[in-house]
Amino acid sequence: MPGPVRPAIADVARVAGVSRTTVSHALNEIGKVEPRERVADAAAELGHRPSLRARSRTIGLVSSMPIAVAGGPSRLGFFMEVAAAASEAALVHGYALVVVPPVAADPPLDSLDIDGAIVVEPDQDDPATRRLRARGVPVVTLGKQQSSDIPHVDLRAPLAGRLLLDHLREQGARRIALIVGGGRRNSYVDITAVYREFADRHRMEPVVVTADESGGEAAGYAACAELLNGHPDIDAICATVDAFAVGVLRALTEHGLRVPADVLVATRYDGLRARTSTPALTAVDLHLGQAAASAVELLLAGLKRETGPQVIANPDPVLVARRSTMRSPGEQQRDAGDDREQWTTAQPSSGSAARPKRTS
Amino acid sequence: MPGPVRPAIADVARVAGVSRTTVSHALNEIGKVEPRERVADAAAELGHRPSLRARSRTIGLVSSMPIAVAGGPSRLGFFMEVAAAASEAALVHGYALVVVPPVAADPPLDSLDIDGAIVVEPDQDDPATRRLRARGVPVVTLGKQQSSDIPHVDLRAPLAGRLLLDHLREQGARRIALIVGGGRRNSYVDITAVYREFADRHRMEPVVVTADESGGEAAGYAACAELLNGHPDIDAICATVDAFAVGVLRALTEHGLRVPADVLVATRYDGLRARTSTPALTAVDLHLGQAAASAVELLLAGLKRETGPQVIANPDPVLVARRSTMRSPGEQQRDAGDDREQWTTAQPSSGSAARPKRTS
Repeated sequence: MPGPVRPAIADVARVAGVSRTTVSHALNEIGKVEPRERVADAAAELGHRPSLRARSRTIGLVSSMPIAVAGGPSRLGFFMEVAAAASEAALVHGYALVVVPPVAADPPLDSLDIDGAIVVEPDQDDPATRRLRARGVPVVTLGKQQSSDIPHVDLRAPLAGRLLLDHLREQGARRIALIVGGGRRNSYVDITAVYREFADRHRMEPVVVTADESGGEAAGYAACAELLNGHPDIDAICATVDAFAVGVLRALTEHGLRVPADVLVATRYDGLRARTSTPALTAVDLHLGQAAASAVELLLAGLKRETGPQVIANPDPVLVARRSTMRSPGEQQRDAGDDREQWTTAQPSSGSAARPKRTS
Repeated sequence: MPGPVRPAIADVARVAGVSRTTVSHALNEIGKVEPRERVADAAAELGHRPSLRARSRTIGLVSSMPIAVAGGPSRLGFFMEVAAAASEAALVHGYALVVVPPVAADPPLDSLDIDGAIVVEPDQDDPATRRLRARGVPVVTLGKQQSSDIPHVDLRAPLAGRLLLDHLREQGARRIALIVGGGRRNSYVDITAVYREFADRHRMEPVVVTADESGGEAAGYAACAELLNGHPDIDAICATVDAFAVGVLRALTEHGLRVPADVLVATRYDGLRARTSTPALTAVDLHLGQAAASAVELLLAGLKRETGPQVIANPDPVLVARRSTMRSPGEQQRDAGDDREQWTTAQPSSGSAARPKRTS
C-alpha cells in the first residue's frame, strides 16, 4: 500500500518566499502561525496539487434502500448512523470512507475508486452488491443478503422480531399485525418468519401487510388504513421500518384510535423518528455502531486476505420500551365493552408507563 | 475528467462460463437473475479489480471539531447532518464524498485522494484547512474561517444569535449568560459580538463563560456550575453548542433550578440533542441541508474554474421555540419575592407553551 507522499515542498517554498524548512515546519504544525498561513496560501495559489499524489485507501458505504425509509428526518436515519460509525472505524484503520447514500437514481458505482464496499441491508439479488462484485470490488454486507454467502454482519433480525412481538403480547396485545417493506431484505424475511411462528404458537390470525419502501411514511399510512379496513380488531402493529411506523401513528389518530390506549405500535430501528414521534415509539437498539465497526473489520480482513470468520454476529439487540406500547395503569381501552373485550382482559405489565425502560 | 471505464468483460465471461453479451447484460441489470449472480461471483472470484480502473471524482468533508460536540447521540450530530446532505449533493454532480469525521487524532489528510474539500465550522487558522491547502487541495468552508478569505457558505451566525437573545428577552429573561466554546470558530466570535452588543443595548451585565469543546456535555455542566457560582441571579443561558446545553440542563436540575420556570435555556443547533432532551431545547433551524449543498456547489464551481461568488449566504435561520424557553401562563418562578423580582415582571408572551412553534 502506498504511504503518504509529501507535496512538492520546493515549489511551495518558492511561492511562499520561505525556506524549505519553514514549509516543512508549517506542514507539521510547528513554528509561528504567520508563515504557516503564508505557506498554505502559496500551496493554494499553485492552483493544482503536486503531480505526485498519494492515494489513500478507501472503502465505500452503499445503500440500496430508498431515501424515504433510510433517510429519516434531516436525513439522519439508519444509513447515516451506520456511516458515522463506519467512517470512524475506517479512519482508525487508515482507510477513508466514501458515503453513497440511497439518493441518486444511478449512483456512480461503476467508477467509484474504492478498495472494497459495505452494502447496508441489501435486498436479495441486490443490484448494488452485484454491480460492485461484477467490477471485482470485495463486498461485505451489513445484514445478510438473502440466498448468498457474501460475508456479513448478522444484525440478529429474528431476535429483534421476537423481542418486539413478545413485548407487545406482554403489554396485552392479542391481535398483532405486521407491516414489512416489499422486496426480500433479510430483516423483512426473518421478522416475517418469526411473526408467522409467533402467530401460530399463540393461535393468532397472521395479518401481514406489505408497504412500498419508496413511499416512506405515506406508505405506512396507507398500509395502516388498509389494515384497519380489513381487520378493524387489531390491537397492535409491528412496523419493521420506522418511517412506516410514523405513518401508522398518523393513520391511527385519523381513525380516532389512541396509541397506546387502543392500539400499541412498535418498530425495529431505534432512530430519531422513534425517539421524536408522538408518542415516542418502542423500538430495538440494534447496536448499529458496533455492527458498522464489525463490517469495516470484516471487509479489511478480507482485503488483507486474512482468514477468519465470514460472518460476525452482532450482540443481542435490546428492547427500548417507550410510550407507544406502555399503557398507564389507569388507562382504559376505548370500547372495552365491545368485541375487543375478550382479548383485552390481560393487564399491562408495566406500572411505569412514562419512563422508557430497557429490557433484555 | 475520466468517465466510467468498464471492467474486463472478457475475463469475467471466461470465469463465469458465459458469453460477453451475458456479462454485459448482467452489468446492465438486463436478463435473467441466475446468470447475473454467476457473473457477479466470477468477478468477485477474480480476486482483484481489473487493472483499468476508473477514478471517480471525489471531495472530502472534514471537521476539526472534537467528536464530543460534533458527534451527538449515536454520533448523529451537526457533522453527520451536513455529511448526509453534502453526499447527496455531491452524487448529483457525479462526485463521491469522503467523510472525515472529527474522531481520529491524526486524520489522513495528507494522503486523502480528493479533488477538493469542505471544512465544517473551521477554527481560526484551522489545522485541517491549512494541511489541505498546503497540499494544494482547494478548500471551501461551511461557516467562514476567521481572518481568511477562503470561499465559504455564510451560516448567518449573527442572526442566529440575535434570534435566540431576542426570544429569551421576549420570554422574560433579563440576565442572560452566554456559553461559548474555546477557540475562534466563526459562530463563537459572531455570537459573542452580538451578545455584547445586546447586553450593552439592554444595559445587562455581560456574562460569557468559555467551555472546552472536547469536554462536550461535561464541559457545559462545568460551565453552568461556574456560572451559578459567580452569578446566581442569571435567568437564562444561551449555549452556542448543543452538547453544552444538555450539560447545562443537568447542572440546573442538580442545583434545584427548574427549566423553564426558573431559568430559560436555548442553543444554536437544532439537532437530535435539542429535540430529545428534557425539556426539549429551543434552538435555531440553520438550514444545514441547504448550506451543505451550497458548499458542494461552491467547491465544484471552483474546481471547474468558474467565476462566481466566493461567499454564498445561507437563508435566514429560523427560531424553533420549544419547552426550554416557554413558560406556561400559570407557571411561577421559584422565588418571585426575592431579588429576582425586579427583572421577572415581564410576562411570557406565549400561551401555547407545550407546542413547538416557529417564529421568523
